[in-house]
Amino acid sequence: MKIPVGVLGATGTVGQRFVERLADHPWFEITALAASERSATRPYGEVARWRLLSPLPERLAAMEVAHVSDELPCRAVFSALDATTAREIEPLFARRGAFVFSNASAHRMDDDVPLLIPEVNPDSLDVLERQRANRGWTGSLVTNANCSTIFLAMALAPLDRAFGVERAFVTTLQAVSGAGYPGVPSLDILGNVIPDIPEEAGKIEREVAKILVGARDAAASRTPLVLSAMTYRVPVEEGHTESVSLELAKKAGGDDVEAAWHEFRGRDDVAALPSAPPHPVLYLREPQRPQPRRDVLAGDGMCTVVGGLRPCPLLDWKFTVLGHNTIRGAAGASVLNAELAVSKGLLS
Amino acid sequence: MKIPVGVLGATGTVGQRFVERLADHPWFEITALAASERSATRPYGEVARWRLLSPLPERLAAMEVAHVSDELPCRAVFSALDATTAREIEPLFARRGAFVFSNASAHRMDDDVPLLIPEVNPDSLDVLERQRANRGWTGSLVTNANCSTIFLAMALAPLDRAFGVERAFVTTLQAVSGAGYPGVPSLDILGNVIPDIPEEAGKIEREVAKILVGARDAAASRTPLVLSAMTYRVPVEEGHTESVSLELAKKAGGDDVEAAWHEFRGRDDVAALPSAPPHPVLYLREPQRPQPRRDVLAGDGMCTVVGGLRPCPLLDWKFTVLGHNTIRGAAGASVLNAELAVSKGLLS
Amino acid sequence: MKIPVGVLGATGTVGQRFVERLADHPWFEITALAASERSATRPYGEVARWRLLSPLPERLAAMEVAHVSDELPCRAVFSALDATTAREIEPLFARRGAFVFSNASAHRMDDDVPLLIPEVNPDSLDVLERQRANRGWTGSLVTNANCSTIFLAMALAPLDRAFGVERAFVTTLQAVSGAGYPGVPSLDILGNVIPDIPEEAGKIEREVAKILVGARDAAASRTPLVLSAMTYRVPVEEGHTESVSLELAKKAGGDDVEAAWHEFRGRDDVAALPSAPPHPVLYLREPQRPQPRRDVLAGDGMCTVVGGLRPCPLLDWKFTVLGHNTIRGAAGASVLNAELAVSKGLLS
Amino acid sequence: MKIPVGVLGATGTVGQRFVERLADHPWFEITALAASERSATRPYGEVARWRLLSPLPERLAAMEVAHVSDELPCRAVFSALDATTAREIEPLFARRGAFVFSNASAHRMDDDVPLLIPEVNPDSLDVLERQRANRGWTGSLVTNANCSTIFLAMALAPLDRAFGVERAFVTTLQAVSGAGYPGVPSLDILGNVIPDIPEEAGKIEREVAKILVGARDAAASRTPLVLSAMTYRVPVEEGHTESVSLELAKKAGGDDVEAAWHEFRGRDDVAALPSAPPHPVLYLREPQRPQPRRDVLAGDGMCTVVGGLRPCPLLDWKFTVLGHNTIRGAAGASVLNAELAVSKGLLS
Repeated sequence: MKIPVGVLGATGTVGQRFVERLADHPWFEITALAASERSATRPYGEVARWRLLSPLPERLAAMEVAHVSDELPCRAVFSALDATTAREIEPLFARRGAFVFSNASAHRMDDDVPLLIPEVNPDSLDVLERQRANRGWTGSLVTNANCSTIFLAMALAPLDRAFGVERAFVTTLQAVSGAGYPGVPSLDILGNVIPDIPEEAGKIEREVAKILVGARDAAASRTPLVLSAMTYRVPVEEGHTESVSLELAKKAGGDDVEAAWHEFRGRDDVAALPSAPPHPVLYLREPQRPQPRRDVLAGDGMCTVVGGLRPCPLLDWKFTVLGHNTIRGAAGASVLNAELAVSKGLLS
Repeated sequence: MKIPVGVLGATGTVGQRFVERLADHPWFEITALAASERSATRPYGEVARWRLLSPLPERLAAMEVAHVSDELPCRAVFSALDATTAREIEPLFARRGAFVFSNASAHRMDDDVPLLIPEVNPDSLDVLERQRANRGWTGSLVTNANCSTIFLAMALAPLDRAFGVERAFVTTLQAVSGAGYPGVPSLDILGNVIPDIPEEAGKIEREVAKILVGARDAAASRTPLVLSAMTYRVPVEEGHTESVSLELAKKAGGDDVEAAWHEFRGRDDVAALPSAPPHPVLYLREPQRPQPRRDVLAGDGMCTVVGGLRPCPLLDWKFTVLGHNTIRGAAGASVLNAELAVSKGLLS
Repeated sequence: MKIPVGVLGATGTVGQRFVERLADHPWFEITALAASERSATRPYGEVARWRLLSPLPERLAAMEVAHVSDELPCRAVFSALDATTAREIEPLFARRGAFVFSNASAHRMDDDVPLLIPEVNPDSLDVLERQRANRGWTGSLVTNANCSTIFLAMALAPLDRAFGVERAFVTTLQAVSGAGYPGVPSLDILGNVIPDIPEEAGKIEREVAKILVGARDAAASRTPLVLSAMTYRVPVEEGHTESVSLELAKKAGGDDVEAAWHEFRGRDDVAALPSAPPHPVLYLREPQRPQPRRDVLAGDGMCTVVGGLRPCPLLDWKFTVLGHNTIRGAAGASVLNAELAVSKGLLS
Repeated sequence: MKIPVGVLGATGTVGQRFVERLADHPWFEITALAASERSATRPYGEVARWRLLSPLPERLAAMEVAHVSDELPCRAVFSALDATTAREIEPLFARRGAFVFSNASAHRMDDDVPLLIPEVNPDSLDVLERQRANRGWTGSLVTNANCSTIFLAMALAPLDRAFGVERAFVTTLQAVSGAGYPGVPSLDILGNVIPDIPEEAGKIEREVAKILVGARDAAASRTPLVLSAMTYRVPVEEGHTESVSLELAKKAGGDDVEAAWHEFRGRDDVAALPSAPPHPVLYLREPQRPQPRRDVLAGDGMCTVVGGLRPCPLLDWKFTVLGHNTIRGAAGASVLNAELAVSKGLLS
């Protein structure tokens, strides 16, 4: 018996990825697809304008779309809502007893809301007890981070654990799918670069710190951690590239850094989850890698791919990070979060 | 009477820009176009596969291409040769008495070779006397910097002059024209980002330091200056974008930084040169600017365009820089260098 | 004393081109910029999000935007309105006595409305007298054709005049700027081709026939003229490419066809208009031309560029046509129409 | 026991696709990878610069590359050689007794060489007996057609069988992968369209006729069949789009045409082949389809996808065709050809 789940905001770019990754999931079964009023009551196949290469299963194409404020026949919902709608709708589901796995930014920085990357900070789920008490909910709300945050946090986590990360500078080159659909007009991005994705840099700076500091033990938590991010949109469809430079508390050689990535694994219960990639952080030794076109599907889109490690004249090390922004950076992240919740007996 | 000049490597991406910018120049007249053996003795219009939007003048289309090792009827030559060929050919011309303005990297870091940006370090031409003595030349060799270097050096120069720049971090997003023709295969770059342009980061780090330190007065020259660069190729045709973060010796507010850029001018003799843009550094206040598609032709492609100034949590300030890589970053740079040489009476 | 003119729909892709081409016009002066309610009463520079490389003049940036239904201080208006709004608004201006030059499709096929290409069917203006009588207007309405129509009609016109065109097949590869702004989402077009631009094929088939048949003399008008069009959107910014094959009433050799294009000129009064290109149809002999990136600005964007003439195994000849869709295919077309109206004394 | 096979020209764009599709093939096992002198004797993984998203198996990455003129331990070879090399090398293999499945154009139009599409003209293999007699070979040579030819022939075949195709006009919009690697320079194709792919139109016109006429029965073979092709390169990575208009010998309604496509299947022995897609021709009813980005992987890249059927004012029907140029249009085509040869007992 699979766990009945729904997707909120099911027609958008991330919503479609949720549907794709849940369609054949071993533990979950989609029993509801919800969207805005414009789509509600119509068959999902008609309103979704399916844009993924994998075919939309007929059962889901025929499913009548619910409105996001409807009660849904689900024990968990995956939210691809925009922040404003999420702020209002997600608590309704949690209050009614559902487990909400959200890709929205609305509640990520709340003290009693886990900002979860299972391989990095699985214990952040422990706050859920307090969350229920605080909010009088019978359900729960767990968030995944911003796409660029996830890749950076995953690339930094093994280094922070081994050596302590004190400072990191990141410049992102982000794919257009990160802006949703219709999203970026083609006239703005064909052969162009757009600086300063609104609000993105602040999210990265805050969220990476929350995740990494939350994953540290008491001793390590005294190491300062300061991040600075600059963000750019580039004419790439899927895959955010990040140029990273960092300073370590404990000096480390290049081999040590590569080894820290190579050996990095989630806890055993995390590594066993259906969507967990064998290597959460995959280091490529070939020159001029990773590249979105060639590496974005590593680990079925669930790896963070790293390459080009070299010494930084200013800080300690610099390198390139790549991740699939709508899989590991969004829908795949929340599905993995939900798997961890099931594995820990929080959802059944 | 215009000064007769030639272009070495005239068929390539930068060579064509030299031809374009010299075709109607008030002081120079193209009297020779030289290229490799494959093109020599054939009409330029046939071998160049002209790729610029401005039409190729018929006189030049009909001109018979010389071989780069030929003696040419010119008092100055503009070199768009690759580094290896430049290392061999450029000294031949200088030895024979020609003034060589080179875009090649071969001699840029030589002690007795000016790495000139007229608005920034015009006095670097003073070394030419020593160059002739050292090398026994009757001619001279002046270089322009790497494209990404030029934009970064121009953006930093006003801040270094006013406040002292101690450290700067730059990530470049570079256009494909920077790799010449045929250059980057379309299969490698359509919808993609390629990290680590070979040898580019080192050039930027070394050349910016040579230019800025060379422009400092004795007092300032004690400020340390350390740069760190990471380089990326993006699917843009013309225009390199740079994400910059820097630390200043003397703290400055955002208004001060903007004012330093806004007020920055070359010396009077430089500002009066035919190719000098009115504002060498143009600061755009609109959000999400500069962008290659919209801003790359500012000042007829001779401006360095800056935008998005904001505080950096790690260093002091961060911002975006843009420049036209084959104009200000290559051919336009050497033409401006030549104009300065004329203006100072070194070439006539 | 220039003629005061306004632009309706001034903030859009075509509206901005109108502003660009009228900003320094020798005969016209912009005295009003009108747009939808959302933009009205605000400075044009703030609401337009200027997207062209040429700078927006400060006088126009500061101009307060009017609402399209306002009375405007103009003797002529250029309309970049969408078809639905144009159907309602354009007659209001004509009724009040203004000369309306419209890029909208709303009235193009009306019997008493000129569908004007000055080099091809200048006498279509003669219908204006009947238009005023029919409609009780003191002003007039003149339209330019659909962008793809204009290039095809211009390429066919010299051949129709010389040999008679009986049948033509066209497949268009259209730039994204033709869909306006925000227009085509980047997720739909990056690395993609989209078939069947809605309603486009029918417009081309009908409008080309109206223009060419209208330009024929009595004898020629008995030649049948049938067109078939298929339309595609491609990831190009500016410039529609058309693959054309045609059958002639009177057989002609390739040299004759090339000569017909080469010798084609508008009537003397048309050729003398400020925006008229020296060669309305420019034939390129180089292989693999014309191309949008290299040829779209021929004649300041006002040429129709043709190349690749070769025999067609099915019909007679096939070739490639290119034009600048927002200049010759839209704003530049209506400005040229207005110049003809002035030249004929219809507008002053 | 699988049949040992080799790939000639294994490092190129099509060669890599051969490797990908043979790596896990149920009937074939790669025992040799051959390429030019530059690559020979080195490990395939080092020289191939693997560019496909699917990972290269380690066994093959480690395989030492042979030279294409070496004797190889294979009963069949798949040739991704260029035409000139193929003309010389392929007969060597056939002479030595190997079965050659070639993607090269060198021998396609030879009378005694099958130009095979298994679903369309499976009996073309019957000519092999004569081929051996003619040429004194103990092996055989079978070719697949040009990529654009295959999609057009497959889309026309069901209509030719049911109604007779008399004339067809096609304009292709071809992906850059069709030009191999490095192939099209990015400066030539970013945001551009290039007309007239050299020699492509003639190949399409001749090859489609050879395939379709060869598949007709005696009665049908009297119907004339004339084709006209125009070819364009567009900034798409994988997937050729074709705009087609055709005239039928026996008039047919749109439903009849769609039914002919929908019901089209290869013979039973063909339909059972491992690489045969369930629907060789897939008709999409959704508007604005097929599109490369969304439909190119239909049937694992082995379908020809058709859409947008509508009446043609000049001929009878027009529609859009799409196929994956390096799978169904190249490597996948020859693999399917080889499967048919095995199934018919010609290769074991």
